[in-house]
Parts: sequence; C-alpha cells; structure tokens
Amino acid sequence: MNLRVGVDLGATKIQTLLVADDDSIVARKRRATPVMGGPDAVLAAVQETIEQLLARADQPASAISTIGIGAPGQIDAAAGVVLQAVNVAGWDQPVPVAEIVGEMFGVPVALTNDVQASMVAEHRLGAGRGRANLLGIFCGTGVGGGLILNHELWVGAGAAGEIGHTVIVQDGNQCGCGRRGCLEAYAGRGALEQIARDHHAAGHKTALFALMEEQGRSRLTSRVWLDACLQRDELALELIAQAARAVGTAAGSAANLLDVDCVVIGGGLATRLGDHFLNDVRIAAQPVLLRSDVANRIVLSELGDDCGALGAARIAGDRLAQR
Amino acid sequence: MNLRVGVDLGATKIQTLLVADDDSIVARKRRATPVMGGPDAVLAAVQETIEQLLARADQPASAISTIGIGAPGQIDAAAGVVLQAVNVAGWDQPVPVAEIVGEMFGVPVALTNDVQASMVAEHRLGAGRGRANLLGIFCGTGVGGGLILNHELWVGAGAAGEIGHTVIVQDGNQCGCGRRGCLEAYAGRGALEQIARDHHAAGHKTALFALMEEQGRSRLTSRVWLDACLQRDELALELIAQAARAVGTAAGSAANLLDVDCVVIGGGLATRLGDHFLNDVRIAAQPVLLRSDVANRIVLSELGDDCGALGAARIAGDRLAQR
Repeated sequence: MNLRVGVDLGATKIQTLLVADDDSIVARKRRATPVMGGPDAVLAAVQETIEQLLARADQPASAISTIGIGAPGQIDAAAGVVLQAVNVAGWDQPVPVAEIVGEMFGVPVALTNDVQASMVAEHRLGAGRGRANLLGIFCGTGVGGGLILNHELWVGAGAAGEIGHTVIVQDGNQCGCGRRGCLEAYAGRGALEQIARDHHAAGHKTALFALMEEQGRSRLTSRVWLDACLQRDELALELIAQAARAVGTAAGSAANLLDVDCVVIGGGLATRLGDHFLNDVRIAAQPVLLRSDVANRIVLSELGDDCGALGAARIAGDRLAQR
Repeated sequence: MNLRVGVDLGATKIQTLLVADDDSIVARKRRATPVMGGPDAVLAAVQETIEQLLARADQPASAISTIGIGAPGQIDAAAGVVLQAVNVAGWDQPVPVAEIVGEMFGVPVALTNDVQASMVAEHRLGAGRGRANLLGIFCGTGVGGGLILNHELWVGAGAAGEIGHTVIVQDGNQCGCGRRGCLEAYAGRGALEQIARDHHAAGHKTALFALMEEQGRSRLTSRVWLDACLQRDELALELIAQAARAVGTAAGSAANLLDVDCVVIGGGLATRLGDHFLNDVRIAAQPVLLRSDVANRIVLSELGDDCGALGAARIAGDRLAQR
C-alpha cells in the first residue's frame, strides 16, 4: 500500500491522518499538543502518533511515501523550518521540522503553513473544488486566511492571506497583534473570550463560564460557544453575531478587491457553529459585495478538523510527484 | 514613424497621447469631455483630438499602428464595448467604442478599464517598475484600484481591484455606491466635497468654496483642495488628513492580505497633493502593516495625468504584438 501522512500541528491539538493515493482517509488520530518539553516533546508525539496509525492500519513504516506537516507561525517552506511559532509552547527558536521528522521515517517531509495547507485542501478536495479564485477565512483562536488565485496558492512574498489582520474598524478593538480594528479582534476565539470575560467581570449575566467549568475547560472552546448559543445565552449570541458580521464585512471587502469566485469559511469556531454562523456571515457580506451573487458562494469548509492535515498530505504528495 | 495612440477617456477630461515605440510621448492633448451629445459627441472629440495631434507631430494617419483607450465603468475588453459608464453623460447603454474608433482610423483598437490601464502604466513605465506584486490606489472623483500579481494585471472574474469599495469602517460613512464605510466615502473627491458642503452649511469656516469660485469652478477640484491646504485652511487640512488615513488603512490591510511589494498612490487628488499626502498615507499604513518595511514602498504615481493614456497605449501595443 502506498500511503501519505498528513499532520496538522496546532497549538492545542495535533491532527494526524494516514491518506491513500485517492486522498481517502485510511486512519486518523487527534491528540493534545504537549505543553511541556518544547519541540522535542511535540515531534516525539508526532512520531508516536504516526506509529500508532500504522499499527492500526496494519501497515509497515515502509508503506509511507511522504509526510506533509502543516504548522502555525512563520515557516521557511523550502528549508522545512518553523522559524517561530509563538503560540506553541517552547517554539520561539527555529526548528528544522522536515529534517527531524524525515530522519524518523526515512521519507521526504513537506512543511507548510497550516492555513495554507487548509486552503489547498479546500480547493482540491473540499468546498472550493473547481474554483479558480478562492478566499479562505479560518476562525479559530486567531483568524487565518488564504488565497487561491488561478488555481494556485497565492503566497505573495511568502506571507499572503493574512485577512485576520485587515482592518474592519479604523481605531477599533485592540487586537492581540498590537494593532487596532483587525478582523481577528472581533472574530478570533481568543479575542471573543477576552470580550466575554470583560462583560462577565462588569456584571453581565452569561452561561459561558459555567458551561466552560462543567466541561472541565479553562478556556472558552468552540464547543462552549456553541452550547451557550444553543441555550440562547444572550451575550454569546450577541458576540457570535458580531463575529459573523466582522467576517462578512472582511469577506465582502476582499471579494471586491480580488473578484474571487468563492469564499470558504472554516476553522474550529466557524465549523462548530455551522450554518447559523454562515448565514450571519452572508447577511453581513451581502451589502458590501459589488457582485451580490458571490454571497451564495460563501460556504462552510467541508473538511472540518481534517482540513489542515489533508492539505499537508496533498502538498507532500504533489512535491514528491514533482521530483 | 510608428506611433501608438493612448486615450484616457474620463468623465471630465479626455487625455490623449501620441506615443513612440519606446513609450516616449511625442505629443499630448487634454480637453474637457463633451457633456452634451452622448457617445457620438465624445467619440467625435476623440477623433478630432487624434487628428490634431497628428497634425502637430506632422504625421499622416497611416503612422498610427494601434489605438488604446482606457474608459471608466463596466468594460467588455474582449468585445471592445463600454457596457455602462454612469459617470459619463449619456453612456448608460453599451457603446462599441473599439469598433467605432477603429473605423475612424482603420487600425485595431484595444479597450481597457481606465484604472487597469493606469495600473499597467505604473507597473511597466512608472513607480512600480520591476515590482512583481503591486497594488494601486487612485484617488479622483471616486477611488479606483488595481492589482499586478506576478507581473500581470489581476482582473479576477473581470472586475478585480475595487479597493474603493472595501470597508474600512463598519457602519461608517454612506458611500455614493449605496454601501457604508467604503474607502471611497472617505477619500474620493466626490465624498470629500459632500462632507465639506455639510460642514460649510453647518457654519464651519472654510476657504474651500471661496477658492472654488475664484477659480471659476462649480466643484471642489484637486487644485482647490491643494490651494486650501497651502493656505492652512483647517477644514481642508482635516478632511485631507482623514482621506490619507483612510487610504493608508486600506493600503495596509490589502498589503497584509496580498503581501505585495509596493503600493502606488495616484489619481488627480493624490497627485496634486503630493508628498504631504503620501506621508500621511504612510503614517496611517505603518501601524496596520504586518511587514513594516512595506511602508517605505508606498509611493506616488510617477506618470500623473498621462498614466491612463500611457497604459492604454502600452496595452494596445502588447495586443498588436500578440497577433
């Protein structure tokens, strides 16, 4: 059997897939990212997970032809090095990920930015199949984005797609990046939690934090936001509606600038909240769009939690084929 | 002699150039766009102007190899038809410009959107020479924009570049397009005039309207804005500073999304106001940019009033060469 491995190396979760030649998923495993031990511990966890998946699929390590890894932060894709990933504990120095993981399994490793990997997956295998020009907006802890132009990933000088740091409100909310009015300051889970905590501290009633504790969490996860919305918690509904409006405004502006065919909305938060969130995004984008028919082509990611890992595996396969 | 003609067919002015093979300008003429008589009168004025330029250069009509026309509004470039140009009097129905002007001179005519023509000129001959990835923002009556990606004009499904209708303030100023918070509602000369009139009517002191009358104008032209700023008119300075801030915010956001190498600021208003305006744009863009070094690569258009006509002539030459 000829298998590829796809790894989505996130700040909180590592999603790993064994993928067949036709991009079907043979096995998957999701685990927490080690918070102690830095890069060594994280890459040991990746190794262990791949070995577990091979065992589960009853395949030898030699069945793997290539490994694709999507990682957050600044990437030197050609060198296979994560330069800096401030959200992953201990990854503040360059880590030669491709070399280290390549030596573990004796196969070529392709390293990509995680959001760019997700974009490739949605374009090749997901909600953006067949679209020449595609914008992706991924709402998780932060807000990432990516662009497919003329069927190719657009990276600009290397870092294109940063729709999370486009300004939607001049002098607006403080963003975690130090700037003001960024989309991420309205639609990132980190920003939303901070706003909710401020409201809670100011005496606003909300079920958000009780739900968080019930679920044994220390952060407001996408699941907590969903459950609070399902309970019709007013603060949760209001903040999520604001987030969707912010995403819709940014999507509309970017669609006007680039004249894209399709916008894919993904990431943990958007994926969990689903159609209701999508609908609010469309309603907000509609009055902004110059081509109003684009509103119906704002769609949810189809690949959900597998998106980044599938894209990483796809990119690795493409690179191997080019050799 | 082998000459190309470039025409920038604007709502208020027609700029016409005779251009040599090396893109040097042999002769130029600028005239008001006829406001009566619709397309027939406008295209007769184009014909007359080209004939005058030929006479001035002492060249026969047969010296012209091709004519390039940049026009505002919706264009079907392949068919050579202006579908609709609401800002040009009487151009509310499709006009087969390329065919009509082609028959006048017996040469092929290339029709392009005026802003896209300007973008090509700045990339090939102006401030964006040698840049692979370039954003243009043109502040005139409205705010137009264009994109060069990988050394090619990016048109998306045909209408890309509309940075004037990206939202910089959610629920912000009403824009002439019916939307809210668009860049154009802060940095277009039309919007600026309306804001100034409102302030004036509310009793704000300003020299703007006295200057307008002194100069025999019925609108606040770029020249009027410049003169008011030079006189340190407070309202003019404040509104122009706001406009520059809006342009800087939009430029920063778009640069983050696309990771462009360079941003060219042009159009009548920006060109007249010059370095002072540019400096304010840079100051506003700086805190938005993810790559702060891009601020120094926000530059003024080098081609000024010739920009659109030069680009149209260049595009016409390229198309002829491809046949």
